Order: sequence, then C-alpha cells, then structure tokens
Amino acid sequence: MASVSAEIVSVGTELLLGQIVDTNAPALAVILADCGIACRHRSTVGDNLERAVKVLTDALDRADVVITVGGLGPTGDDLTRDAIAAALGDRLVEVPEMADQLREFFASRGIEMVDSNLRQAMRPESARFINNPYGTAPGLICEKNGKVVIALPGPPSEFLPMASGPVKGYLSRLAAGHEGGGLIIHSRTLRVIGIGESSVEARVRHLMDGENPTVAPYAKTGEVHLRLTARAATIAEADRLIDPVEAQIRAILGDAVYGIDGVDLAAAVLGLLAKLDQTVASAESVTGGLIGGRLTSVPGSSRTFRGGITAYTPAVKRDVLSVPGEVLDRYGPVSAETAAAMAEEAKRKFNVDWGVSSTGNAGPTADVDGKPVGLVFIGISGPVGTETVRAEFRGQRENIRERAVQLSLDSLRRQLLRLRT
Amino acid sequence: MASVSAEIVSVGTELLLGQIVDTNAPALAVILADCGIACRHRSTVGDNLERAVKVLTDALDRADVVITVGGLGPTGDDLTRDAIAAALGDRLVEVPEMADQLREFFASRGIEMVDSNLRQAMRPESARFINNPYGTAPGLICEKNGKVVIALPGPPSEFLPMASGPVKGYLSRLAAGHEGGGLIIHSRTLRVIGIGESSVEARVRHLMDGENPTVAPYAKTGEVHLRLTARAATIAEADRLIDPVEAQIRAILGDAVYGIDGVDLAAAVLGLLAKLDQTVASAESVTGGLIGGRLTSVPGSSRTFRGGITAYTPAVKRDVLSVPGEVLDRYGPVSAETAAAMAEEAKRKFNVDWGVSSTGNAGPTADVDGKPVGLVFIGISGPVGTETVRAEFRGQRENIRERAVQLSLDSLRRQLLRLRT
Repeated sequence: MASVSAEIVSVGTELLLGQIVDTNAPALAVILADCGIACRHRSTVGDNLERAVKVLTDALDRADVVITVGGLGPTGDDLTRDAIAAALGDRLVEVPEMADQLREFFASRGIEMVDSNLRQAMRPESARFINNPYGTAPGLICEKNGKVVIALPGPPSEFLPMASGPVKGYLSRLAAGHEGGGLIIHSRTLRVIGIGESSVEARVRHLMDGENPTVAPYAKTGEVHLRLTARAATIAEADRLIDPVEAQIRAILGDAVYGIDGVDLAAAVLGLLAKLDQTVASAESVTGGLIGGRLTSVPGSSRTFRGGITAYTPAVKRDVLSVPGEVLDRYGPVSAETAAAMAEEAKRKFNVDWGVSSTGNAGPTADVDGKPVGLVFIGISGPVGTETVRAEFRGQRENIRERAVQLSLDSLRRQLLRLRT
Repeated sequence: MASVSAEIVSVGTELLLGQIVDTNAPALAVILADCGIACRHRSTVGDNLERAVKVLTDALDRADVVITVGGLGPTGDDLTRDAIAAALGDRLVEVPEMADQLREFFASRGIEMVDSNLRQAMRPESARFINNPYGTAPGLICEKNGKVVIALPGPPSEFLPMASGPVKGYLSRLAAGHEGGGLIIHSRTLRVIGIGESSVEARVRHLMDGENPTVAPYAKTGEVHLRLTARAATIAEADRLIDPVEAQIRAILGDAVYGIDGVDLAAAVLGLLAKLDQTVASAESVTGGLIGGRLTSVPGSSRTFRGGITAYTPAVKRDVLSVPGEVLDRYGPVSAETAAAMAEEAKRKFNVDWGVSSTGNAGPTADVDGKPVGLVFIGISGPVGTETVRAEFRGQRENIRERAVQLSLDSLRRQLLRLRT
C-alpha cells in the first residue's frame, strides 16, 4: 500500500498578519517525518469560514490526512470546527458529557461560563474528541470516506502535549497500518558541535540515503542535530536498528558528537563535571553573563556551577576580578593572556576546580585597542593548568556572543574529556 | 480601486520536514500589513516543480501579488525560477551582465564557479532583478497580465534586507497606486511592559478600529508591542497622523510604555542611566547572569554597566558577594532581605550608582527552604535607598528566569523615572 500523505493547515488571522510566528506547524512536520508520513503542502488561512473550507477541501483532495492547528477556541472567530464539518459534509452535534465537563471546569475555577463556551462541546458527526489536559478546547479526529481530519488547538502549551502524545500515536499506527502493520516510530537525536552544517552533511551523506533508520540534519545556532528515526515492532528493536548507524556517525564525527536527545551543551558539560565530582565558575567579559546564564538553565546546576564575575570594564577586571594590571596594560583586555588570568581568578575566587572565561569584541565597532569585531578569547583553567582558545566570528553582535558561549562550553567539555582518558 | 491582495509561498523541502522554522513568512506578513496589502493565504511547498507550479497558479488565481521565499540557489533543487516561469507562461532567459557579475564575484573570492551557478543569471522574460547585496542569488519582480510575482532568497540575512528595503518600497508604491497615488507607509512601535496582552488590548481596543493609523498588538515574551501604521504623502505627515494616537495610548497606559521601535527594555534602562550619567552593576542568583547578559546585548553598554557577580549558592552569596551570614540564615537565600543585601553589595563592590539583584526559585521543584517554584525577589539599591519587589511567576524554568530579568530591568526603570521627576 502506498505511504500515507498529510497536509498541515494553520488557522488564524494573527498568523497571516505576522503577529505570531508559527512554531506548531514545524513541530508537527517533525512528528509526521518521524512517522514516515509525507507532508507535501502546508497552508495558513485566516479566521474566515469560506476560505478555510476551501483550503480544507483542496487539502483533502491531495492528502490522506489533514491536520488543522488553531481556531478551536470559544469565540465567534474560532471557526475550525465549522469549517471541518462543512468540508466533510458533516453536521455539528453537541456532546452532553463534554458540555458537563466544561461546566464543571468553569465552576471549579469560579469563572462564569458564557454560552459561546459551549461551542467547545460541539463536534462534527464523524469526529471523536482528543482530551486536552492543559485547556478547555478538546481536539478532534474525524474519519470519513477514507480520509482523516485531525484538529488541534493553537496555544503551544496545549498543542505540543497533544501532538507529541495521542496524535503521534494515532499517526504512527495509521502509517504502520498502511505499510506493514503494528510498527512503531522511534527517534534519537545526535547533537554535534564544532563542525559546520554543510561539512556534517558532506561527511555523513552516505548514511542519509538509508530508509530505516532515516538520518536527517537540523541546523541550530552553533551546532547541528542529526535525527535518526527507525520503524520497528518495538522500541528495543528500533534501538537495535539505530545503534549501528549512531556508531558509524560517532566513528566519523568523533568528539564532535556531544550528546543525545534533550541533553543540551550546558547539560552535557555539567554532566561530565558531576561525574568527576568537580565544580566550575565563570569570569565573563564579552559574553556579559551568558555563560552563567546557559549553565544555570539546567535544573540542579547549583550542585556544580557556583557562580561567576562579569567584568565589563578594564577597571573591574583589575579591581573586582583581580586580573594583574600589568597583564591588562601589556596585552590589553582582549588577549589570550587576559583570558587566562580571568579564568584563573574565577577558579581561585570561587574555590572551584574549573574557571572558564571569555573576553573579546562583539562589535559593532573595533574596540579602543583596535581589536577587530568578532575576535574572542576563551580561557579554561583547570586541575592541570590553563589553556586559551582564540576565534574570529563573523556576524552580528548577538550571534558573536552566542557563539562565544558555545565555544567556551565546548572548550571546557573537550578538556574534561581529555582529563577522563 | 479595490485594495491589493497578496499571498506568500515558501519553497523548500526542509520547511515541510520541520528542519527549520519559517521566520521569513511572518516578517513578510508584517511588511504586507504595513503596506495595507491584504494577505489571505500562506502556503509552503517542497522542492518539487510540478507541485510548486500548481501552488503558484492557485495563488495567482486568488491574489494580485504572489511573493515566493526560497529556492533561488544554484543547485538542481532550487526550482523557484523555473516554477514562476511555468506559472506565468514565460521562457527563462540568461542575462549576460548578471552572468559576468557572478563570474567576477566568484573570481574575487577565489572560488571556482560551476555551471549550475549560472542558473542565478537566468530570469523569466517578464522579470527584472532585485539586487542582493548579501549573496549571489538576485531576487525577481515579474509583472505580467496585471499580476505581480516577487521572488526572494531564503537565507534570512539575504531575505530581510531585500524584503524591508526595495520590496517594501515597491509594494507600498503598488498599494498607493491602487488606493490614492503617491502615498507612503510609515510605522511606529510602542513597547509596553507590566500589563498583560489581553489587558492592553481591552484598554486600547477603541483605537484598534481606526484605519489611518491602524493599531495592531504583537505579543512578545514579558511585553506587548503596539504597532501604529499610517499612510500619507510624506513621513512627516504620517508622523502627524500617528502622534495623537500615540499620545492617547500613553495617556491610557502611562509608564507601561517604555520605548519606541528598536529600543528594547535593556536599551531603555541604559538610556535613562546615561542621561543621569549613572552606572549599574548586578548581583544575580535565579537569573544566573542573564540580567548582565541582557544589558550587555546593547552596543556601548560598557559605559554604563560595569559588571556583576553571580552567586549561585548560599556560600558564594556570603563569601564572594559578602551578603551577611545572619541575613541568609534568618531569612533564607530566597527572601526580600537577601535580595536587598545582594543589590547593596553589587552597588558597593562595583562602586556604581545602582545595584540590581535577583533571587528566587525557577524550579522545577521547591527549594531546600520549601520556597515555591516561581517565587522571585528583585532588589534595587540606588542613591536614595534600597527597594525590593516580590513576584510569583507560573511557567517553565526558562520562562520564569526570563520574566525575572524583565522584572528586574523594569523595576530599575521605574525607580529611574521616579528619580527624574
């Protein structure tokens, strides 16, 4: 049987006006790709019944599954239910149990329920509800004439749990039914740093032709993610299909693969430190506090990250951070020597195993010493001495700073890996 | 004459797979809204000629102007040029001057040019090129049979300057020609903090019915933007239309309007400090360095922001930041008293006019003292004493931290405003 095809229809005038960026549709696209369902079109339409019905009708002509996002709220603008009913030739019916549930929800919050709220208890005849644990708008799954329409609410906090939970389960069963029966979809993401996207692609391209698992690259700021997706009878079997491909990628990319799935670079660094029972502090200039900000984005980071000093002027580097005046005078604040002294002072002042530092010029203009925009030095001071890394980044101020943070964390990570071996 | 309508067509298989989020289409939607051009559909299609031609043909049936984004690169996947030519019934012709320009570009970079690069010197017969200062793919404007097709490259660094420069100019002239002749479009954004989006909307809704200027709300993290857009013969005249509406909004929202256009909250705070010739330093716990990170995102911030200490454990608060041990013991690290002492120490240690501090629990679990997730204290120590602000935020860890940063900057801003009067 041919593979299943799907289309995504985002509903909302605020999307057409650019008032919000649609992050739901790409998240849904990843879920469809994971399920092996081909998505060939995406559309966005405003809160207009006639146009929404036309877009849904066109989508149903082309695809097996149409998934709508948004327009399930209680107000008159929220017309996705009506549009789906019209496109499918269904009547809308009120579901008494859902109406009761809504009344209870409002009563429990002490909020008055207005009549329009009862619209959320309506569904097209051929639909069943998908429970929404984080809001009042239930989702819909309609099966009719060999086609499927799924409707999900627009707020990401409601959309995401429903899309990645029951809807992904439904879609993977649907895709499995079409292609082999009883298969599940399982993904693993390898996180790669220190190699550009095109270079990663060039080095693993031969693995991207595979069908099970598939390998797809996703470009992120300062790193690249490789998503390996397998179809199998069980998660364990999918893992057995993914393992050898992961091993091949690791053999090619080496230490550039820093983590798996939800473990970001800061979490990876903190994990290595925790294994060694070691601690870290920062001394920041060009990154202005963002190294600490990244490390503390990880829950529980206070066990490993003690704190930091941001020294944004030469006087503060000398007076608060205790960088020797002669180092600042001789080499300048943007130098390997200053980066080294900053990292050493962070280590000493916070009484930790590792000090990590940044100094540089993020622009927009060359600094007082004439150091060019994008020049960055990272210092890492640890149990066996101090090293510095020099980089020249091109780009805008915030991009240079973000890449300096990534470089500082990756430099510390590579020293921790060396220490471990 | 009826107003102009437009559709946006994003081209790229990577968009359908969710490998990147489409930020170009919403940016273009804002430009269209500014120009008073109605955008009723947006579509996304992959790198497939037949499907791209169909989507373009459908869009041309519905709208006066179709704008494509992406698919103008040099490889075989980049088929937007071919799809537009097919949809318009045009032949593709090579433009010798553009071919020469490409050859020169590659020669000047010392890169070998392959034949496929010459595709970028091709255009549909009815097209003219739009210069691309940041890449090799020129844009296209095709006028044929009363319809317009505009093609722009996908990389945001190339797309944005072209869309907000020559393309916006072309579109506003087009819209003006349809509606009154010689009018320009001019916008001003009022940035609002401390009032929720629905509350802002409720208070200024009567102004949102106006047609010239229009008023549109945009929800951002921890703040709301109100965009005022006027059509007039000159910018000065547009400003005269916008001024009284801005005055009405300011009368309603008061100090909650913190800035205009590109001036973000950090820049607004630094601007107030610079006017007073005063300086600031931070002492951070729950925000982990992000207050300093935000302040230093503003170019030239080193004149005003001196630095900060991140004290992520009670011991560091005591030993490095010098918060009295009895304050920590008696009130706990998450308390108004500790926030006040932290701000005072930042002011003293960095020898500045203002110290700003944060302490709290960003979760995911209640802290050792049982302080609930989301509880945050901000301290502001200045020339006339120290004040603290208490807040309880709901949400995920990063959201709580980001809102704590916004609150710290807004608290400092409100004290600076009081000092000024």
